[in-house]
Amino acid sequence: MLASTHSAASEPAETLTVMGGGLVGCLLALYLARHGHSVEVFERRPDLRGSTTVEARSINLALSDRGWRALEGVGIAEAVREVAIPMRGRMMHDAAGQLTFQPYGQAGQAIYSVSRAGLNRRMLDLVEQEPNVRVQFNQRCQHVDVRRRQLELRDETTRETRTVPYQRLFGADGAYSAVRAALQRTDRFNYSQHYLDYGYKELTIEAGPDGSWALEKNALHIWPRGQYMMIALPNLDGSFNCTLYFPYEGPNSFAALQTPAQVRAFFAEHFADALPLMPALETEFFANPTSSLVTVRCFPWTYADDVLLLGDASHAIVPFYGQGMNAGFEDCTVLAELLDRHGNNWEALLREFETSRKPDADAMADLAVYNFHEMRDRVADPRFLLQKKIEGKISAQYPDKWLPLYSQVTFSHLPYAEALANGQAQEQIMQRLMPSITTEADYEQPEVQALVAAEMAQRP
Amino acid sequence: MLASTHSAASEPAETLTVMGGGLVGCLLALYLARHGHSVEVFERRPDLRGSTTVEARSINLALSDRGWRALEGVGIAEAVREVAIPMRGRMMHDAAGQLTFQPYGQAGQAIYSVSRAGLNRRMLDLVEQEPNVRVQFNQRCQHVDVRRRQLELRDETTRETRTVPYQRLFGADGAYSAVRAALQRTDRFNYSQHYLDYGYKELTIEAGPDGSWALEKNALHIWPRGQYMMIALPNLDGSFNCTLYFPYEGPNSFAALQTPAQVRAFFAEHFADALPLMPALETEFFANPTSSLVTVRCFPWTYADDVLLLGDASHAIVPFYGQGMNAGFEDCTVLAELLDRHGNNWEALLREFETSRKPDADAMADLAVYNFHEMRDRVADPRFLLQKKIEGKISAQYPDKWLPLYSQVTFSHLPYAEALANGQAQEQIMQRLMPSITTEADYEQPEVQALVAAEMAQRP
Repeated sequence: MLASTHSAASEPAETLTVMGGGLVGCLLALYLARHGHSVEVFERRPDLRGSTTVEARSINLALSDRGWRALEGVGIAEAVREVAIPMRGRMMHDAAGQLTFQPYGQAGQAIYSVSRAGLNRRMLDLVEQEPNVRVQFNQRCQHVDVRRRQLELRDETTRETRTVPYQRLFGADGAYSAVRAALQRTDRFNYSQHYLDYGYKELTIEAGPDGSWALEKNALHIWPRGQYMMIALPNLDGSFNCTLYFPYEGPNSFAALQTPAQVRAFFAEHFADALPLMPALETEFFANPTSSLVTVRCFPWTYADDVLLLGDASHAIVPFYGQGMNAGFEDCTVLAELLDRHGNNWEALLREFETSRKPDADAMADLAVYNFHEMRDRVADPRFLLQKKIEGKISAQYPDKWLPLYSQVTFSHLPYAEALANGQAQEQIMQRLMPSITTEADYEQPEVQALVAAEMAQRP
Repeated sequence: MLASTHSAASEPAETLTVMGGGLVGCLLALYLARHGHSVEVFERRPDLRGSTTVEARSINLALSDRGWRALEGVGIAEAVREVAIPMRGRMMHDAAGQLTFQPYGQAGQAIYSVSRAGLNRRMLDLVEQEPNVRVQFNQRCQHVDVRRRQLELRDETTRETRTVPYQRLFGADGAYSAVRAALQRTDRFNYSQHYLDYGYKELTIEAGPDGSWALEKNALHIWPRGQYMMIALPNLDGSFNCTLYFPYEGPNSFAALQTPAQVRAFFAEHFADALPLMPALETEFFANPTSSLVTVRCFPWTYADDVLLLGDASHAIVPFYGQGMNAGFEDCTVLAELLDRHGNNWEALLREFETSRKPDADAMADLAVYNFHEMRDRVADPRFLLQKKIEGKISAQYPDKWLPLYSQVTFSHLPYAEALANGQAQEQIMQRLMPSITTEADYEQPEVQALVAAEMAQRP
């Protein structure tokens, strides 16, 4: 057994297997290769970069600080920044088409709209330039035998099935992970998959004829409607990718919208300012799938000292905090730090990874569901928006004592579990302060200033 | 579509498929056959009744009122009663070997120790006498294609795999259900499997040389030790089946007992009165497996109107309330009542079954974990035992207002969810009364009687 702290340079390289060539799988492969290992990546889908691959829909993701740091760690951040669109705040659209802008953070802070497929392509390019990494596409993992350490892979082009041994296996194969499915059948594997009663549908706001943006470009647009909402993220070509988050059943639901006329009438009533910008609405509504929203939790994330789950495979979350990809990328940052510290002492490395990271993954899953309620409902409440403004003032006045929860999650590298705990403590303080506050200006009142000072005096 | 209420007699019989020939599968097959259907049962294991089948260990179960009612519904109760041993209460063994007896209910009430294998054999005999039921053994379900409605079965004797279509499929195939595994891969299937950090090990207290019982026969024996415990249930031959519930890790744990000498020393210290009755202790401890304790929850319990999960397949629970089998049997009672009411309107039947029964299954799962803490820890506390005695007095004085939780679960047919809610309300009353009570006799004090009367006046 190796000592638990030593430099990676002294370690013999191993051949490592990564299941999944998506965003997390690619980034992980880069980190493992940079630590001196040979890496074999198996991806179920065809190569995204192939000329025959037509993307039906281009999903956008919100890249934020944790994701950027992970990309910087392998030198890819600058290239991505060129194709990313900063979104500096939420632009709320009320039913009358009135707009309210709420900044996400301080001046200069933003989250970034990036195309999932575009990012994945760029990362595959980088992975292929890495001499120690080999990616094989069209490799469906049909079975993992964790006791014998072998994979059963089906080549989707030749339809042939082969058995491939592995030394160490990293499951970065997403929310429906085949590696996790194998772990689920082992004894004492805790597991849950929980679906919201909401589905989502992707729609499009078209670009203007001159390639301009029909809505404010540098914002994440939200149409909050209480029990449901639509959001829109900007694309480079002037269009926006919209997502309708909507109940499966009930009076306003996917089940209730069965005809193009019903869809148009519904949008005309509830999303009136967006409707003229969505000429393909009815076609897209019935052509695009209704997708479900799952939270996956499990533990352990390892099997013996030769299997590890990362990203959505171990902690798939709902998309409402824009942290799914960022959390998966941060897994890579955490793992890289442990590779530096533990070298090839995989037993120590894997134990520390799963025990230190699991509370953060659980906290992020809770935060993501929490933000769904905030986005669809609370952001339309003037009192809630006032509270957010007051929070901003507290944070500006007491920068060492107060960082809004959203900023802790999005613009810091504080562990998610700490962010959640801080956020809950801050929310309790706001619940005590807000009864004394009616307008933004009230914050300057001496009695409010005294209340705030008293609360701040009790914070570390 | 058929009307939702009508008599079963008017319905055409269907051919129904039951996966699993265990306790719930057999009982279910009987109920379905008695409702006029043809039933095909597939069981993974060999026929328990075969002369070549040697049972390594005979597990005992505690049959109580819900189970008896379900057995009575198909006329098997009296035959089972002949081989069941009534256990009228808990017999607690403290570290010094002192005994304390706590009755489970009123005079005449008991739970019954039965051999799982013996009960299963008897039920298989009954199933085979039913002209409309056919049981096939050694049929491993490798895959269920719920969209095409077909099973992939592997005959464990011939090793041949075949595809078998089904009209309607009942998954009564236990905690590791193959039918449920297929449902888990369908969209929006909520699922969790959660393990306790405890395992269990089966051990034996030998019969006396004359076939007598070395401990009180008509009791469930408990050695409560705070963080762990042992229990023992009587067998007809004078022996007791013991189960040690023990942490996997920690100072007192399976991990800490690695040698026969360590096991003997541990039992000598903590189970001193049992040790002389367990001559095979060390052999059994290392020969018998350490088994895990899982709670499984899922929803829906159906797929379309042609698949239904029952018993452990939809709600596996930990064994500490002795309700796993009873809950599965009660599923059959509930289903039989719906068959009477809905006939072949399977859509209405399945929807009502899962929506009405799911809250009860969840409540029972919670109660089972709750009782683990009570059994291993609280039953050794004199204040807790005093509280139980006071509860008995309240129940005797106000029989229409108060039934102890244990009796609601064990000796009534009240839905589990109602029992749990009632039990929680009663516990809150006890928390208010107990500070005024130091001894059993205090119950008769006028001020205590006044407090109790005031609480009872507020109950329906």
